[in-house]
Amino acid sequence: MEIESFVIKSEGDWIAMRSGHSLAFKQFEEVISEIKIRLLKFDDYQVKDLLEKTGYSNSDFSKPFKIEWSAQSDWDQSTKDQELHGCSIFIPIEQNNSTGIFLKSKGYAEKIQAISDYLFLDDGTLVLSTVYENMMAEERIWFLNHNVRCRASVVRSIDSNAILQTSFTSEVRKLVS
Amino acid sequence: MEIESFVIKSEGDWIAMRSGHSLAFKQFEEVISEIKIRLLKFDDYQVKDLLEKTGYSNSDFSKPFKIEWSAQSDWDQSTKDQELHGCSIFIPIEQNNSTGIFLKSKGYAEKIQAISDYLFLDDGTLVLSTVYENMMAEERIWFLNHNVRCRASVVRSIDSNAILQTSFTSEVRKLVS
Repeated sequence: MEIESFVIKSEGDWIAMRSGHSLAFKQFEEVISEIKIRLLKFDDYQVKDLLEKTGYSNSDFSKPFKIEWSAQSDWDQSTKDQELHGCSIFIPIEQNNSTGIFLKSKGYAEKIQAISDYLFLDDGTLVLSTVYENMMAEERIWFLNHNVRCRASVVRSIDSNAILQTSFTSEVRKLVS
Repeated sequence: MEIESFVIKSEGDWIAMRSGHSLAFKQFEEVISEIKIRLLKFDDYQVKDLLEKTGYSNSDFSKPFKIEWSAQSDWDQSTKDQELHGCSIFIPIEQNNSTGIFLKSKGYAEKIQAISDYLFLDDGTLVLSTVYENMMAEERIWFLNHNVRCRASVVRSIDSNAILQTSFTSEVRKLVS
């Protein structure tokens, strides 16, 4: 169960350095965040709630988890409260050993409930693809070692297929002393 | 010949946005560069020279090419001339359809002649691994479409295996009007 071990390795507290690249404008964005990833119990009310809302109540699922983030951006102060703090519930549902879907209570490119397809590449990289209302996002996540994870993403417009932004995040595990 | 089509797709002029993450210090580096990638003739003197210097004169090789870069960094002005402009010759030598080596006249993590191992992941991502004197570098390069390439890299210390820096580059092809 490749997704289970990936989720278990991801659990913990992380400091994330994120760089966003707006390709059309050659603009960089830099954000440092704290991210908490916690496994949830199978009967957690938040899990039940998301399964019901997405119509997957009768499906087998593996390790559900919650991601909480809290970020400081170098961008406009006014957007900070609404976008840079938040949390989302994730429920993986396997199709086979290396592919499946993720139910998400809140998406990455658009902050709405979403369902992502996932697959694992042959080196263990997790690739997540999500279609939102106006955008499509692809994220690839891989471990450099037990304590460092990388995430590269691209967001495209659905109408034009134009690439709106790429981004890269280096995540370092906060070690408890 | 996966490497040949990758090199042919890469030929051209690119504008590159690069973000470097120094994990220990939580420091970001931002660089915008121009990159030119040009195929070389098999009998180009620069190709012959690199084959001789590396002891591969009798090997079959595929598409050799040259990368020239010219960058503007937000870092210390004094390092600019020595590191941010330069060129390197690359000669791919296939082992099988998806793995092989690259001879390089100048490396990425250390500016010395180097030999990299390469392999292709099942989604077409090229992964390059290079061992230098003091550091090891891994680069992964993939296309988002014909005109956008991404490169993610990690540099580790050989002694401690510590991760010194990660970086991510978004490369957009300059279209000739």
